[in-house]
Amino acid sequence: MNLSIKPNKIFFLGPEGTFTDKARSVFSQYFEIENAEKIPVCSISKGFDLLTKNENSSLILPIENSVEGMVRETTDNLIALENQNIKIIAEHIISVEQNLIGFCKNISEIKKIISHPQAIAQCRKYLFNNFPDAELQYSSSTASAISSLTPKHPEICAIGSSYCAQIYNVPVIEENINDKKNNQTRFIMIGTQTVQKQPNSKTAITFTTSNTPGALNRILSIFEHYNINMTQIESRPSKTCLGDYTFLIEIDGHFQDDMILKALFEAIKNTKTFKHLGSYFSI
Amino acid sequence: MNLSIKPNKIFFLGPEGTFTDKARSVFSQYFEIENAEKIPVCSISKGFDLLTKNENSSLILPIENSVEGMVRETTDNLIALENQNIKIIAEHIISVEQNLIGFCKNISEIKKIISHPQAIAQCRKYLFNNFPDAELQYSSSTASAISSLTPKHPEICAIGSSYCAQIYNVPVIEENINDKKNNQTRFIMIGTQTVQKQPNSKTAITFTTSNTPGALNRILSIFEHYNINMTQIESRPSKTCLGDYTFLIEIDGHFQDDMILKALFEAIKNTKTFKHLGSYFSI
Repeated sequence: MNLSIKPNKIFFLGPEGTFTDKARSVFSQYFEIENAEKIPVCSISKGFDLLTKNENSSLILPIENSVEGMVRETTDNLIALENQNIKIIAEHIISVEQNLIGFCKNISEIKKIISHPQAIAQCRKYLFNNFPDAELQYSSSTASAISSLTPKHPEICAIGSSYCAQIYNVPVIEENINDKKNNQTRFIMIGTQTVQKQPNSKTAITFTTSNTPGALNRILSIFEHYNINMTQIESRPSKTCLGDYTFLIEIDGHFQDDMILKALFEAIKNTKTFKHLGSYFSI
Repeated sequence: MNLSIKPNKIFFLGPEGTFTDKARSVFSQYFEIENAEKIPVCSISKGFDLLTKNENSSLILPIENSVEGMVRETTDNLIALENQNIKIIAEHIISVEQNLIGFCKNISEIKKIISHPQAIAQCRKYLFNNFPDAELQYSSSTASAISSLTPKHPEICAIGSSYCAQIYNVPVIEENINDKKNNQTRFIMIGTQTVQKQPNSKTAITFTTSNTPGALNRILSIFEHYNINMTQIESRPSKTCLGDYTFLIEIDGHFQDDMILKALFEAIKNTKTFKHLGSYFSI
């Protein structure tokens, strides 16, 4: 398939070798984005900042992990987006396998383990059972943890992908150390480009309701009435005070589908604020 | 008020000087827990591990922040609890103010900022606007970040509470740097002890439903039917594959209230798995 969206810049959560970079290479097989400049960004918020400042750019980010749940920095930035032309264009799920990576000869030497908090969380049990006394240090990405390793300090190791270990030329000590073996991460591509409606489409919306019993229930009843499958519901604090929430919901279907359009129209009437985050191609 | 629950050990997310430690001191004004041994733990999971291994102990932990949302390590451990006698006993909300702490003479010297990921997230905008080039390093707690500071390295500073800065004798450089000024964190005390029903009670449950349109909606409809106010809904991945969730819901009321008992009974009949996490005193 070759869907032309032609952004001139593609931002992605870097550095090179991250799982997001891997997702970028999958998206590039579906969309004509090979000629766009590939620019790694150091944080999700920085990515949103650059996306809004660069017309005709795209951004690739993780949005959900099967163990850790929704990536809050992504959902919160999506909810806060002011430019209504920026939408989710596509999503793609990839399997995530974490590995113990480093230069030690024997795992008993290991005193410190560095990685991104999400990767450490995915290996919590393994680390607790095998390295109860090792110091855990958080890094901004699994790639930056791996690139910081040196043979001079074999007592320090990292957690990350074998793809990345290969890029930085560091040995893999133990493979597949994540606690849950079906570890998957869902990535999204967002931007101002539009793609024609595809058969595998999903739609994301975000809304707030009045703070009364049954307010959320009224919205969910609308989707049930039209027999629409909800694939995700996430409540995020409105950030004013405890107990006030913004909801992010994903459903199967495209806003151009008759039933979806009707349901969204009714939802708009029953919410305090409402935003369509995109109807996107599930690859 | 003096409610006797008499645990012999109180575990709390340490080290001394954390906001959890502050919450512990509030709980100790309501419950007779002064004679219990106070034991700081280095992680939330470690706290649950010790709680289940020590009969008649209590554990104090953060469960929700008004900016960052539910504390996932806490909710995931609550969901996974196998000992049905361990329940949430009480909750308490405290205001959280983050400060820039360190030994520098001038903020232009600052090259590195250390803190817990949650504290850094609460100051994301402030850091982005004031220190776009500073290296951000994650620590296991705000207290450990502050205690690691030394006048020999004035270019390194930390983010945390003034209460903690005072304990470790480090100057506060700038006060109240969190992006949202109404920053609050909710703490819970859990254990096997029981407290008699109080007027300000809340109830927490966790459940899974069949993966069909309207399944969650059916449960929420039950609470609406009995006019029960839902104060929180959180979806957590079931950790098997993407798209399969466990829900954690908090409602106003105690399971000994007539309406709550009826609603919970109906909910049990309409869920695949169901667990009562406690009916607790909101202080």
